[in-house]
Amino acid sequence: MMNVLSTLLAPDKSGKLPVYIQIANDLMGLIRSGTLQPGYRLLSTRQLALILKVHRRTVVQAYDELLAQGWLESHTGNGTFVAKHLPEVRPVPIKQEGNKLTNPLKKAGFAFDKPAHLDRPVLKTTTRLHLDDGFPDPRLAPLEELSRAYRSQLLHGNPYVRLGYGDTGGANWLRRELSTYLNETRGLKTAPENILIVRGVIMAIYLASSSFLKPGDYVALDSPGWFGAAMNFQQAGARLCEVPVDAHGMDVDFLEELCEKQPIRMVYVTSHHHYPTTVALRPDRRIKLLKLAEKYGFIIFEDDYDYDFHYLSKPLLPLAGADQAGMVLYCGSFTKTMSPAFRIGYMVGPEDAIQHLASLRRIIDRQGDRMLENAIAELLQTGVIQRHLRKSVRAYKQRRDHFCELLKNELPGKVRFQVPDGGMAVWTEFDESVNLQTLAANASRRELYLSNGSVAAYPSPYANYVRLGFASSDLNELEESVKIIRDLL
Amino acid sequence: MMNVLSTLLAPDKSGKLPVYIQIANDLMGLIRSGTLQPGYRLLSTRQLALILKVHRRTVVQAYDELLAQGWLESHTGNGTFVAKHLPEVRPVPIKQEGNKLTNPLKKAGFAFDKPAHLDRPVLKTTTRLHLDDGFPDPRLAPLEELSRAYRSQLLHGNPYVRLGYGDTGGANWLRRELSTYLNETRGLKTAPENILIVRGVIMAIYLASSSFLKPGDYVALDSPGWFGAAMNFQQAGARLCEVPVDAHGMDVDFLEELCEKQPIRMVYVTSHHHYPTTVALRPDRRIKLLKLAEKYGFIIFEDDYDYDFHYLSKPLLPLAGADQAGMVLYCGSFTKTMSPAFRIGYMVGPEDAIQHLASLRRIIDRQGDRMLENAIAELLQTGVIQRHLRKSVRAYKQRRDHFCELLKNELPGKVRFQVPDGGMAVWTEFDESVNLQTLAANASRRELYLSNGSVAAYPSPYANYVRLGFASSDLNELEESVKIIRDLL
Repeated sequence: MMNVLSTLLAPDKSGKLPVYIQIANDLMGLIRSGTLQPGYRLLSTRQLALILKVHRRTVVQAYDELLAQGWLESHTGNGTFVAKHLPEVRPVPIKQEGNKLTNPLKKAGFAFDKPAHLDRPVLKTTTRLHLDDGFPDPRLAPLEELSRAYRSQLLHGNPYVRLGYGDTGGANWLRRELSTYLNETRGLKTAPENILIVRGVIMAIYLASSSFLKPGDYVALDSPGWFGAAMNFQQAGARLCEVPVDAHGMDVDFLEELCEKQPIRMVYVTSHHHYPTTVALRPDRRIKLLKLAEKYGFIIFEDDYDYDFHYLSKPLLPLAGADQAGMVLYCGSFTKTMSPAFRIGYMVGPEDAIQHLASLRRIIDRQGDRMLENAIAELLQTGVIQRHLRKSVRAYKQRRDHFCELLKNELPGKVRFQVPDGGMAVWTEFDESVNLQTLAANASRRELYLSNGSVAAYPSPYANYVRLGFASSDLNELEESVKIIRDLL
Repeated sequence: MMNVLSTLLAPDKSGKLPVYIQIANDLMGLIRSGTLQPGYRLLSTRQLALILKVHRRTVVQAYDELLAQGWLESHTGNGTFVAKHLPEVRPVPIKQEGNKLTNPLKKAGFAFDKPAHLDRPVLKTTTRLHLDDGFPDPRLAPLEELSRAYRSQLLHGNPYVRLGYGDTGGANWLRRELSTYLNETRGLKTAPENILIVRGVIMAIYLASSSFLKPGDYVALDSPGWFGAAMNFQQAGARLCEVPVDAHGMDVDFLEELCEKQPIRMVYVTSHHHYPTTVALRPDRRIKLLKLAEKYGFIIFEDDYDYDFHYLSKPLLPLAGADQAGMVLYCGSFTKTMSPAFRIGYMVGPEDAIQHLASLRRIIDRQGDRMLENAIAELLQTGVIQRHLRKSVRAYKQRRDHFCELLKNELPGKVRFQVPDGGMAVWTEFDESVNLQTLAANASRRELYLSNGSVAAYPSPYANYVRLGFASSDLNELEESVKIIRDLL
């Protein structure tokens, strides 16, 4: 056994794990695998220390560890033994076992399905320049104020209450501030009980899909549309019905025909700035959509991801404000207000639906980040967010105008687009002579991010379309970016 | 129509909403409801201002709003009209409509199921004293250090990258730090790819249930056990098999019999400090549990919610460290290290399973709080968390000892308990003469929180048991709390 143990136990003295823990772990593995059987008498600490060329104290520590854990028993004056109450276990080949012990596991020992709809690349932008999907510029965000507000939440007040469990629906302060804010600026008619704080629009869609869809339900959504919503409906087992979008948003007559053919449970719509095309849903279509919801009993999920960023005199008010029958679930987000890493959004709906969604949210992550939620509430109450919005809308309007001029003047004949009334991106069709994959790959080498279309995967009529986000770059960066594209075309 | 409009439009001049928005909203409601039909010519701004006793500019603003939104059309020199392209809509009774418009919606217009398992009260503790479920004392937590680290994450570096979208599996820095930390202190064998950052243990259970359970699957869990886990398994449609727990943890022989009768897909176990009883799973049972998992192919979900808080010489190493077949999903949390409001935990498992769980997490909330995750990584790297743990384990051990003495001396004959080897609560049986509901209600009036058992809802043999958390109170508070109970018994 001396030889065997010296092969089996080979602690790595330069490893990060203390040597005594390595020895204890390895011994435990040998006991577990049955190599060392219950009742087996171990080498004395002196002998083992000699074999392993370690200090005796190290082996004593390893044995102590295993004695404390019940793997070993000590019979005074007689030595140390593998504990008797361990069950009989079958020995397994030593070498294989030895290797496995030290390697992190790559593959699960159990089978599981990987639904195809979850298999989609994830975007991460690290280049210096970026014409992204339509993200805000965090350089404009009130980070200093947010940091102070967060600190104050963390350090002041009764920590047991402030840092304990809270409401699963979100911090009450934020729900109150948001209720006022949404009623005043978007014509909604909410009480705080109509609001659920979520971790971004995606969580609102997830909660609604999980709670209100059953496998086989029909969900209508715009085409082209947002894959993130589609992934959620597919995860809930829903069947997707695509509704075409034109210059005035979703074709509600087409939707009506769909409703005649099968029971539609939910309609997903980006009514204000349609994603990806940026068009607004025309008022008559809005009215008809609400009427259809009442007639056919479907839920309208209104995703208003970037409401605040509109450059005409007044944005359209959300559908939700005109919903008197309780058919609309509405959601918005601070992701576009601050930065994508701030996972704070809100969902608005009838009180009973919101309560139910909060009860599901409880078993997902219990509650949001209370400190951050309260910090955002403070910035709303003190008007910091509102001032920030006014400032950034001005900046983004200027960037939009400059960017559209650049596209027109620097890339003539290569791109077609409409100047968007709102949002943070231009829905751009590249000429068919342009290969988007090649362009994006070459741009990336020049430190410019540009979507190659693979994440969004628009349907074929839109194969050469891409959203070009202008909000996150300043005027110089926009110029640099467009020049790189010009050089590459 | 003058009379009608003066009844229909009654802006509240002291309301929070600007008067022009109130008028615009109300007019929109009247158009939507069909009271004002397409082509209808509106009163001039002067006339309407007279009727409503508001400044003419206010009405101009309201009309402008609706013109911009497309609800109205202006024919130069001829007046303002309800837009023609609006569809025919049926008028609805005016008074009812008027009321509805101003009230937040209470009830959804669509039907939905409310599963009974989600209907459970939520705990919120606001009393001065608390013998809670076993929460940490945030007064001991390194909040100042955390606040500084968070601020540094928020304000330093390239904000576009730092505050943009990141990995759905969690911040890479934290995964690296945790991998080292868990390998060194718990004998795990992880690479960062084996780790998924989650928002507390509950999210780990949610992800595993949603991904690896199908409706009808059998899940074995300990009884008594944690309702939060059971709620998740029920949400996934699983059938629950209860396995009794004794002084050495889950009865694995009973589990083996279960496995012979039906295919068990998952076994949920709190192996280190069993919840709620605080007992540890004995080593021989651990080995047998792992063997059973390999033999019957079930997943072991090892919930190690408060591993670090152990008061014997050495805690037992997790099952996960001995898992060579890839059957164990392991999770732990910073909730007990810092405070419940910090929704950061981690899940450890085979790389392919972790990747799959991250792909589901993407459509739930996209990613965790990157700033907080990186801040925690910094505190791990600089050893702040480790120092905090050593300090708080010393404090909690002292509190445990003092509290158990108090229970013994102040409440003789009224309570039975074992001094727990670890964790933050004493599993206490009150004498049958004590009515827990009454006791908790009376204690609450004396500013002491004590569970009345309604949230946990233990099975009947444990009807008069309750967890009494000692960690969140200092020695004086513990004395005060026990004296209140003594007075009330």
